[in-house]
Amino acid sequence: MTHLTPDKKILIVGLGLIGGCYADALSAAGFEVGAIDRRQSAIDHALGRGIIRHGATGVLPEYAGSFDIVVFALYPHVFESWVMDYGRLLRPGTLVTDVTGVKGSLVPRIQDLLGGEVEFVPAHPMAGRELSGVENSDRRIFDGANFIITPTGRNSAAGVAAVRELAEVLGFRKISVLSPEEHDEMIGFLSQLTHCIAVALMACRESAHFIDYTGDSFRDLTRIARINEDMWTELFLENKPALLKQMDLFMAKFSELRDELAASDAEAIKEMMRLSTRRRASFDKD
Amino acid sequence: MTHLTPDKKILIVGLGLIGGCYADALSAAGFEVGAIDRRQSAIDHALGRGIIRHGATGVLPEYAGSFDIVVFALYPHVFESWVMDYGRLLRPGTLVTDVTGVKGSLVPRIQDLLGGEVEFVPAHPMAGRELSGVENSDRRIFDGANFIITPTGRNSAAGVAAVRELAEVLGFRKISVLSPEEHDEMIGFLSQLTHCIAVALMACRESAHFIDYTGDSFRDLTRIARINEDMWTELFLENKPALLKQMDLFMAKFSELRDELAASDAEAIKEMMRLSTRRRASFDKD
Repeated sequence: MTHLTPDKKILIVGLGLIGGCYADALSAAGFEVGAIDRRQSAIDHALGRGIIRHGATGVLPEYAGSFDIVVFALYPHVFESWVMDYGRLLRPGTLVTDVTGVKGSLVPRIQDLLGGEVEFVPAHPMAGRELSGVENSDRRIFDGANFIITPTGRNSAAGVAAVRELAEVLGFRKISVLSPEEHDEMIGFLSQLTHCIAVALMACRESAHFIDYTGDSFRDLTRIARINEDMWTELFLENKPALLKQMDLFMAKFSELRDELAASDAEAIKEMMRLSTRRRASFDKD
Repeated sequence: MTHLTPDKKILIVGLGLIGGCYADALSAAGFEVGAIDRRQSAIDHALGRGIIRHGATGVLPEYAGSFDIVVFALYPHVFESWVMDYGRLLRPGTLVTDVTGVKGSLVPRIQDLLGGEVEFVPAHPMAGRELSGVENSDRRIFDGANFIITPTGRNSAAGVAAVRELAEVLGFRKISVLSPEEHDEMIGFLSQLTHCIAVALMACRESAHFIDYTGDSFRDLTRIARINEDMWTELFLENKPALLKQMDLFMAKFSELRDELAASDAEAIKEMMRLSTRRRASFDKD
């Protein structure tokens, strides 16, 4: 498997926010980057900013087959149907990776579809914005962020090492390796559950005058309530069993606090607060 | 009732984080600021930084009675017992205000204790930090923040106007007037509920490796899980009926989302996300 030498040609499939950030970072690092996106406006924007060297709105065999590394930055179902329709066009030896936020159910399906001629090393860059589209992409959102690689038994050590190198070039700080199932549980808790909380909180009450009364806490907590509903609904449904488990865990703990308050059990409330303080403090050491 | 002319002498009772910020901002604005705090180290720190001109660790009649404006920055039960023990020492005509995060149950008790010779105009500055103590105080946390005044039928228009002037001097952006009951409901939702959520979320799972996998969302959501357990437990218990109502409202909405996911009802999930996006977007206009 390939090392990330400067001569490698990299294709981004899907020039949304994250695909655009990959293009931005990889072009800045000196790689030849191409892109496929259905929207001509996305290709034009990326060409105009110089974050891709060439691009196409359709999938031509000679173009799709001319890259060493291919990064899929698509919604899960679009990713799967692209691989179904065009996966055979990638040339043997291509390193394939992705940015998809769910892994357990999707990864084996993609690896089955791609077969043994190309290697798919799944990955999840833990970065985003409340805005979508290549027009809002900016490689700086990767600086210092976390990156998770989720290989299966069908991946090679060399393939994983190459994606780790890619993450380093992109600017990520901490690069971890988890199984797809560990990833889905962890991300169900850390990312999907937090989005569920923010959405439910924001949906609770009419909010016209909140702006005049909020402190920072409500603002921070609901930042992610401004959400791409198509993408996140698909991610939630793809990760349904793991996410339901995390939602139930949170509801049980929240109910516990509610019942302690109802019982005026000050010591139990303080005990939960001391635990949360201790755990949260370990973040701030960073 | 007083206008906030530069000759006014202001006493801060309780040099914690918020009391310290008041002292910092009011001294910077040129007022003569004094303080009473049980801790000599708090008085010494504030004198050393020049954010008070004089201070005392005990309550001497001639000192307590020498101010035009008195700001209480104490825990609710300490505030109440201070007023019970020493309220009669304040000279007639003194304007009294506070920073307490609960109002409905506390305000009438304080107004009863103080009687008719001094006017208590209750207020709640919506600003804070995850650190406590005068040592961490910094007047800049008030810049652009919200401020809520919660007068009762026993307050004068002039008293409310004077506290509004005080808030302006402190640097607050938006100064609102609510009844104590409206305040408690609003703050139960916007501030206390968000702290409950953050604490419960952080208490859910052992967190040693979270730091390697988190995106910004979990970090933002749990910032306030690092919490002063004595103060917040007291605030929660003081506001128990209003907070329980908000907690139940949130749990019902969160359960709704959970059940939509369990039923794979994509359209219902998207509908809640569209609502949350619309509401949250109105914040960002600001």
